[in-house]
Amino acid sequence: AAKSIVSIVFGIRKTAWAHVDRNLTVLDWNQETSHRYMKGAYLPSIYLEEISAAVSRIPKADFFLLEKPSISTQNTNLFPVTLHLRTIEAMLHGLLGGGFLQDGQHRVLSVVRTAVGKHFELMVGESRTSGRELVQQLMLDSVTQEHPRVLFPRDTLTRYRRLFQKGNADRGEEMCDALLQAVAFYEFLFDNS
Amino acid sequence: AAKSIVSIVFGIRKTAWAHVDRNLTVLDWNQETSHRYMKGAYLPSIYLEEISAAVSRIPKADFFLLEKPSISTQNTNLFPVTLHLRTIEAMLHGLLGGGFLQDGQHRVLSVVRTAVGKHFELMVGESRTSGRELVQQLMLDSVTQEHPRVLFPRDTLTRYRRLFQKGNADRGEEMCDALLQAVAFYEFLFDNS
Repeated sequence: AAKSIVSIVFGIRKTAWAHVDRNLTVLDWNQETSHRYMKGAYLPSIYLEEISAAVSRIPKADFFLLEKPSISTQNTNLFPVTLHLRTIEAMLHGLLGGGFLQDGQHRVLSVVRTAVGKHFELMVGESRTSGRELVQQLMLDSVTQEHPRVLFPRDTLTRYRRLFQKGNADRGEEMCDALLQAVAFYEFLFDNS
Repeated sequence: AAKSIVSIVFGIRKTAWAHVDRNLTVLDWNQETSHRYMKGAYLPSIYLEEISAAVSRIPKADFFLLEKPSISTQNTNLFPVTLHLRTIEAMLHGLLGGGFLQDGQHRVLSVVRTAVGKHFELMVGESRTSGRELVQQLMLDSVTQEHPRVLFPRDTLTRYRRLFQKGNADRGEEMCDALLQAVAFYEFLFDNS
């Protein structure tokens, strides 16, 4: 069983991750931003540099969960974005899943975004709405409830709260999605009641 | 300077490579075929398995040259192929270029297909024609010339010749392209006369 996992969600510029152990304690929660993506001709070396920088900050864990980008390949206007997200996804699989070469064990798992959305009842029709308010509630519960669903070490909460302050242009959506994906994974695994 | 390089070219189903040292001796020349690509929904784990299998057979070298797929993203009919090739390319960068995480050295270099085509005068207009006949000539020269352009160890030639036998449905195009890419790289580097 997985003692800890790292859950990763990437957007156009941000790669966010949450390192969560099986007691649902948040060991690390952060993101890396790149401003070098999708400018000029595609250079794989730029992506390797940017994704390596993120991976160097991502903790080691038993499993890595990667959100599977869910853009339809039918919408040709979005093709540059689809290619961009597919590139990040594939490079993350290569960088984090290289151990497969040695022992044939898959350490990187793909998670469908809407499955996480359904687990938390964040779906409106076929679309998933923001998980931001839910995450704010989880943070609040972590200091007010006796048995909170998710545990945030107290010394980290101040830093995380800044994410949700008014006037912060970065709404932390990817970080919220990464955290919820980790929580859903453990609750899927252990709460099959 | 690179004592040896591995040059890699990938098509829809084949990943071919040539391991060539700086004396232009062909140390290894081979390919791996996958029949699991582009079937049903995209699963990154299938790609990781198939590409890891190829990478496990690819020799270690100072540098890895990867042909940059040159499909236009304007042609929307070819999106599935573009996505497929981009996925293979990105995963190869991740699997072969992971050392960048440790020391910041790029070991995987992208090579533009038409640049190799121009080096060998294989261009017809904007398109590159097959390098198969040229490779056959290089193999023949290797046993008939005193100072051949490329050296094939004699004990390997019989195996390689089978590639070009009549009735062989696999025309070995990717293998030819991988070899020519390696030769062009060294000739670019050392023959700037």
